[in-house]
Amino acid sequence: MEKHKVRVGITHGDINGIGYEVIFKAFAEPGMLDVCTPVIYGSPKAAAYHRKAIDSQVAFTTVASAGDIAEGRLNMVECYPEEVKIDFGQPTPESGRAAFLALERAVEDYKAGLIDAVVTAPINKNSIQNADFHFPGHTEYFEDRVGGGAKALMVLANSQMRVALATTHLPISQVAEAITPELLLEKLRLFHQSLRVDFRISIPRIAVLALNPHAGDGGLLGTEEAEKITPAIRHANNEGIHAFGPYAADGFFGAQMYHHFDGILAMYHDQGLAPFKALSMSDGVNITAGLPLVRTSPDHGTAYDVAGKGTADPNSFRQAIYAAVDIWNARRFDEEAHANPLRRQHNSDRHDDAEPKKRNQEISE
Amino acid sequence: MEKHKVRVGITHGDINGIGYEVIFKAFAEPGMLDVCTPVIYGSPKAAAYHRKAIDSQVAFTTVASAGDIAEGRLNMVECYPEEVKIDFGQPTPESGRAAFLALERAVEDYKAGLIDAVVTAPINKNSIQNADFHFPGHTEYFEDRVGGGAKALMVLANSQMRVALATTHLPISQVAEAITPELLLEKLRLFHQSLRVDFRISIPRIAVLALNPHAGDGGLLGTEEAEKITPAIRHANNEGIHAFGPYAADGFFGAQMYHHFDGILAMYHDQGLAPFKALSMSDGVNITAGLPLVRTSPDHGTAYDVAGKGTADPNSFRQAIYAAVDIWNARRFDEEAHANPLRRQHNSDRHDDAEPKKRNQEISE
Repeated sequence: MEKHKVRVGITHGDINGIGYEVIFKAFAEPGMLDVCTPVIYGSPKAAAYHRKAIDSQVAFTTVASAGDIAEGRLNMVECYPEEVKIDFGQPTPESGRAAFLALERAVEDYKAGLIDAVVTAPINKNSIQNADFHFPGHTEYFEDRVGGGAKALMVLANSQMRVALATTHLPISQVAEAITPELLLEKLRLFHQSLRVDFRISIPRIAVLALNPHAGDGGLLGTEEAEKITPAIRHANNEGIHAFGPYAADGFFGAQMYHHFDGILAMYHDQGLAPFKALSMSDGVNITAGLPLVRTSPDHGTAYDVAGKGTADPNSFRQAIYAAVDIWNARRFDEEAHANPLRRQHNSDRHDDAEPKKRNQEISE
Repeated sequence: MEKHKVRVGITHGDINGIGYEVIFKAFAEPGMLDVCTPVIYGSPKAAAYHRKAIDSQVAFTTVASAGDIAEGRLNMVECYPEEVKIDFGQPTPESGRAAFLALERAVEDYKAGLIDAVVTAPINKNSIQNADFHFPGHTEYFEDRVGGGAKALMVLANSQMRVALATTHLPISQVAEAITPELLLEKLRLFHQSLRVDFRISIPRIAVLALNPHAGDGGLLGTEEAEKITPAIRHANNEGIHAFGPYAADGFFGAQMYHHFDGILAMYHDQGLAPFKALSMSDGVNITAGLPLVRTSPDHGTAYDVAGKGTADPNSFRQAIYAAVDIWNARRFDEEAHANPLRRQHNSDRHDDAEPKKRNQEISE
């Protein structure tokens, strides 16, 4: 395989938030250009305005297309050529449109093979809505655009844990009915595969959180644990996935049980993300697993309240770039490892075919 | 007012869990008897068995009734005279019955004025259920038994924050419909009052969490924020309660916004308790506010997995005793402060009557 630095497309997100600030701050560190070849999908005018506002010295080079990007510098593809008015901390139709056009161009270039991975700066979920963007978030957008029928899994990772969400951007009133054994099994398979390939954990252990308080307290506080979650865990076990639970969420985080697992499958957004972020030290990264495209983002939003002030912490964004590069490399490693498999020894004494069954039995004990 | 040490009734909870262990470990510290006069509602036989299992030297004195309790020692009222079989880590009908009888006796003695406050060791919610106990937890039990029509509010406190729950032991499928402006206003009033009287914060600031992810994202992810939560906050503001929000739960805990508020009102169990416990350093306390009875408990459960092993951490239980004593004293302080109020100066220039209104206007700005 020919080696080249991973080409990371960076969408500028909402131009009235802290997107450009965390991009410039991250690339103020010279070592970042040794890690990847970055190309911002954005607006040179908006970028220049932000750079001045936060007094950054970081230079970028505008290129006609991603085909012209070069290593060792911060490239930019112009996606929004119009004049832009930056209105710090305000969602505007203009900022929504600029965010949308950057995403579309990055997806186009990814499909054309011009970039390898995408890191997205935060968007405003309301201002970006239009006839072509009717998604509750980036995760659903990329699933639609580059999934090719594959389902996405939202995974949050920091230095202590990896949390995946069974349901993502759903009102609480719709969560319980959305939890089905089929959905959970699908998410467990995706998570297992992502932990194995993207995070290179050979036999990952996954904790599954309960839906209801006290894990349903034996049926007193809900039946989904017995009727939906436990059957899904059993089924996953039978497929060789090491899934455990369901665990009551408060006790799980209170007893720091996340130290004993490679991944945690939460049933809904706040159940996973509120404790995850409570324990993150500004190093949380959002990863869209399950799709052919590697896509990551910081775990924060547009942070309108501090936009343009120069006080935003770029660490989460920097970690998002590292994660995109690591996962891209991990997938190449996995591809190479499977490119020339050994032939199966059907007639030897090792009984390869029997092994998966034996492993399942161990799990179910 | 005659001063006496606060008489704290301690119910032994599930006798197959870690209840007796944390009780004995807490009172192994001699200073605890200077803080309060404790009386365990329990079984001397079960207590002796646990004391031997964890090799504790703490002595207790069995008394015929709470009328005979004395200061400076660990008293015990026998609530379950039968022989008991301790089965570490197992819920049994016997352990459920023993837990129930201790609660009933403590309530009876509280009503008779023999004890001042109650600290409860953890019960098993399933084994305790019977014809007289059909509650999802202690909070609802005490609301029924000693509430006199008053509503209880479940509050969790540690050294960093106080979290109250708008709904407590409800399946997730029933949470959204249970959230009404009336319920939230009732909880905000109770929380405000508890923060003022029980925690002695003269003008408490309360953060209200959103129900849906991203606080509903302007209606894309749910309408309860606009239709129920925001109106309740406005109404509370008009009553002089400093309530703010609604805040998206993940961002709230991620940005450590709890440092800026005296209390946090969460919409449901795991939303409040998962991040709370994630950030607790084994110092979390559960407080039942809103009732005439002062009742606290540790924030952990029966911990069946470590029962009888001697490894349980008594800190949360110890903090529960401190909290019960502090709150009892705070309420006496409040009563005394209001016993002989100054007469209102109706004819002076200070316009006392106008003040509350002025304060409201400031809030709504």
